[in-house]
Amino acid sequence: MVGMTRPDYTLTVNCPDQKGIIAAVTQIIAAGGGNILNLSQHTAVDVNIFLLKADFSVDETFAQAAFETTFQEVAERFQMDWRLHDKAARPRVAILVSKTSHCLYELLLKHQDGELECDFPVIIANHSDLAAVATQFHIPFFQVDPAKGKAAYEADVQKILEDWKIDTVVLARYMQILSPDFTRRWAYQVINIHHGFLPAFMGAKPYHQAWHRGVKIIGATAHFANENLDQGPIISQDTIQVPDTCSIAEFVQMGKDVERKVLFEALKSFLNRQVFVYGGRTFLLP
Amino acid sequence: MVGMTRPDYTLTVNCPDQKGIIAAVTQIIAAGGGNILNLSQHTAVDVNIFLLKADFSVDETFAQAAFETTFQEVAERFQMDWRLHDKAARPRVAILVSKTSHCLYELLLKHQDGELECDFPVIIANHSDLAAVATQFHIPFFQVDPAKGKAAYEADVQKILEDWKIDTVVLARYMQILSPDFTRRWAYQVINIHHGFLPAFMGAKPYHQAWHRGVKIIGATAHFANENLDQGPIISQDTIQVPDTCSIAEFVQMGKDVERKVLFEALKSFLNRQVFVYGGRTFLLP
Amino acid sequence: MVGMTRPDYTLTVNCPDQKGIIAAVTQIIAAGGGNILNLSQHTAVDVNIFLLKADFSVDETFAQAAFETTFQEVAERFQMDWRLHDKAARPRVAILVSKTSHCLYELLLKHQDGELECDFPVIIANHSDLAAVATQFHIPFFQVDPAKGKAAYEADVQKILEDWKIDTVVLARYMQILSPDFTRRWAYQVINIHHGFLPAFMGAKPYHQAWHRGVKIIGATAHFANENLDQGPIISQDTIQVPDTCSIAEFVQMGKDVERKVLFEALKSFLNRQVFVYGGRTFLLP
Amino acid sequence: MVGMTRPDYTLTVNCPDQKGIIAAVTQIIAAGGGNILNLSQHTAVDVNIFLLKADFSVDETFAQAAFETTFQEVAERFQMDWRLHDKAARPRVAILVSKTSHCLYELLLKHQDGELECDFPVIIANHSDLAAVATQFHIPFFQVDPAKGKAAYEADVQKILEDWKIDTVVLARYMQILSPDFTRRWAYQVINIHHGFLPAFMGAKPYHQAWHRGVKIIGATAHFANENLDQGPIISQDTIQVPDTCSIAEFVQMGKDVERKVLFEALKSFLNRQVFVYGGRTFLLP
Repeated sequence: MVGMTRPDYTLTVNCPDQKGIIAAVTQIIAAGGGNILNLSQHTAVDVNIFLLKADFSVDETFAQAAFETTFQEVAERFQMDWRLHDKAARPRVAILVSKTSHCLYELLLKHQDGELECDFPVIIANHSDLAAVATQFHIPFFQVDPAKGKAAYEADVQKILEDWKIDTVVLARYMQILSPDFTRRWAYQVINIHHGFLPAFMGAKPYHQAWHRGVKIIGATAHFANENLDQGPIISQDTIQVPDTCSIAEFVQMGKDVERKVLFEALKSFLNRQVFVYGGRTFLLP
Repeated sequence: MVGMTRPDYTLTVNCPDQKGIIAAVTQIIAAGGGNILNLSQHTAVDVNIFLLKADFSVDETFAQAAFETTFQEVAERFQMDWRLHDKAARPRVAILVSKTSHCLYELLLKHQDGELECDFPVIIANHSDLAAVATQFHIPFFQVDPAKGKAAYEADVQKILEDWKIDTVVLARYMQILSPDFTRRWAYQVINIHHGFLPAFMGAKPYHQAWHRGVKIIGATAHFANENLDQGPIISQDTIQVPDTCSIAEFVQMGKDVERKVLFEALKSFLNRQVFVYGGRTFLLP
Repeated sequence: MVGMTRPDYTLTVNCPDQKGIIAAVTQIIAAGGGNILNLSQHTAVDVNIFLLKADFSVDETFAQAAFETTFQEVAERFQMDWRLHDKAARPRVAILVSKTSHCLYELLLKHQDGELECDFPVIIANHSDLAAVATQFHIPFFQVDPAKGKAAYEADVQKILEDWKIDTVVLARYMQILSPDFTRRWAYQVINIHHGFLPAFMGAKPYHQAWHRGVKIIGATAHFANENLDQGPIISQDTIQVPDTCSIAEFVQMGKDVERKVLFEALKSFLNRQVFVYGGRTFLLP
Repeated sequence: MVGMTRPDYTLTVNCPDQKGIIAAVTQIIAAGGGNILNLSQHTAVDVNIFLLKADFSVDETFAQAAFETTFQEVAERFQMDWRLHDKAARPRVAILVSKTSHCLYELLLKHQDGELECDFPVIIANHSDLAAVATQFHIPFFQVDPAKGKAAYEADVQKILEDWKIDTVVLARYMQILSPDFTRRWAYQVINIHHGFLPAFMGAKPYHQAWHRGVKIIGATAHFANENLDQGPIISQDTIQVPDTCSIAEFVQMGKDVERKVLFEALKSFLNRQVFVYGGRTFLLP
């Protein structure tokens, strides 16, 4: 949501559902010098969890450290899991790619258009095909070599991510499986796009699977990568109707538009702090 | 939204955007013995209006009159337009029909399924065709006669609405134009379904208009009726793609599914107090 | 497709792709006194199969038996699997239900509206809940008793289907698993609606599975029933986006609209002879 | 449609509906050495027009001139408007742009991906902003100057189009109104994208109009440009639901994805010879 006054902070809270949480939270914000611009709140009744996101601007009396101290007291009373995000600190996001360009272009073009509140300091690839695209957008491009063996190769990736102070990793049709060590180290910070409607059609060649099954709809799924391939918490999904007069090659082609849309939406929601993880799944607040 | 604790009240507020509104509102609710279950809030930056909807349950200390007195003081400070809705008081909704049954069935079936929080005490029609449907659902059916002249005829309708203590009127493909007197008396309480995507294709035979224009998409629009035909504030809209291999007759047939969906959604949002009117248009909060 | 001239026959053909099939087929129709109103043709290049559907009207010179004899000669040359459907012979379709009414109402209302070219001579149920709906539409209602044991119970169903000369069976949220004997006897003549997006979420409580997995989209699937539960060839599917602020109960409610739409579309396509089965999947021609 | 055998020719036909057209057409193709790969046919019953598109490959006996002579005889009998398109002759398409890049990128990226069967020999603009994009894709970029006056300026555009032997012009968010002289000279060869759901919201700032009207859906429309602004025959349209919590700025942003999709689809359909114009509207065959 775009406002004429831009928010300075986003506060995210989740805790067991109880009385009076919203009043308590909003009162601390008001008392600390904050003005709430947008507040989203949801109670997931099936698992009794309360979720809240508040975007607020601040006046000159606001002091972040003091706010956090005061808030922690309330947080303990309500058993809150919470975090205050300073909007001025833009996350640094690395994009990992292989040979296919449509997801990479989508992220770079939307970023250029001001729709993604992050920096893309570096693009990492296991092939050289997309180096020219990185250069067009003036972003350093690193090619790493899976032939070295997974451990050595992932160490190279890890080193680049550290050198460039990366917060979050986006796998934009990156065709390598990450090790459990890697996904654990980057838990809930690696976003992958899978070119199928999960949990159907996990693994390789989902469009071939879908065509032979005779599905009438194909989809794509963006999710956090974890140690189980294509089984991490889902962030975003979309589908399209496919006429039965389509070939497998046409499925692949038509699927690209869904993939790029879903990956963009997932990253955007993530950057806007809309994505909460609880009980093995995500909850996205509006 | 379904919760394990059902809300007892819904509070709706709109006012010019200012600092501290949410904190002020939520504090009064908490102090009065209310527990907020869902809170939606939006600031429409293009017209600088603040909108809020809060569903809350109450404990035994809650007193409605005292709450309203306290709230009015805050309301004046913030120039609020506000209303407290007691969820126990189900709105009484009259359905007006002509000959086509698909919208009428949709409302009655969804109501039977528990999805519409209102009563349907009466069905009014200018033809007898749908009397059997009313009887199937055990609802009194009144036939009125436009041949009497608009004034006499509308007086009959008005009398039935008063006798049955009706709050809200739904025009479920009712093929008579209402007089400005009538729509003004029932301002923002008459919901009409127009079988076209407004503001395109106002007036008669919208599917014929659409087909001859060669549109690739058809739609339906639910809106508040006002003195300008098909120009009242829009509540709900939807569209579907139509292949060019469709005839006008098929447009009419395919459009029915959109019409019944859009009318149901509009009434449901209205009953859930999600519909705010400001500046000649509506804003629906989630 | 609605035409001013209604087709008298539909011819369906599938065979290995070869040169000259369309010319050969259309020439026989023209020579026999037929006038093609709509012709759909598709070559599925991934499996090299040719599919054709032709709707045609006939003049007084047309003789069905002579046509079939002539056509069979061409059919052998091209190794065709073919069938001529006389549109005047409306299929007799039995609807099987349990307790939930939304799919049953959808079929009956669309049928009443002239959108399904079949007869519904009988409704069969394993509960009495929907007897009143059947009566409203003046259709005989039979209740059968699964407590007798599957063999005895299915024999009862089979007897009703035979007594009423049923061609096709629709399972409209019928909550009993059919035996392999039954599905084999009625191969490609039993259409089931599954309340999930197959092949994800097979089996029981698909909405619960979907909610806990945190999917962002739910769907429904109509398919031919075969001996493997929820794995028969898919006829129709659709999906809707579900906000994460929905409960499981809301998934169930929102899913109903998708289920009824998908089941209706599947039956309509089937009756219009658009559904071809080849290689374990269906192909629907426009 | 992608086939293992690529079609060599596409034949398009429209004529008053009569008996035996398909048989006559397919027989000439077969006799001439052609093998039909896809055939689409539709009779628009509301205006009694027959439309046909046939893609076919040819063997070494095929002679284009002889085919056209033979076909012309049949064409006269049926009063056909027809054309034979040689697929080897790729249309030469000029893209006209102003400052916004999303539609231009979409066309260039899809073209690079092999989805548009045309050449883009030249990009013409009334601003210099997008010169770098043209250069990235190695396409000559010409800047023309509307300040010269419409006649002189359009003469410059016309000269470039002639010099580069252009067949078709795509206006990819080109913010200049073309003169009636120009659109008449290029009748049915200029495709424009309008950022609104026509026929609603013609003219300037359609998203502003839509927001103030409170529509719940926004759309985009690709159409042939003619002498009446935004009123030429529609080729492609799409819409998206917009929550009321969106600002005008967000409408503009969200609309871009619809615009680029609709313009791409329109051009693709046009190049595939799927677009027929009759009675002031288009008919697209599958």
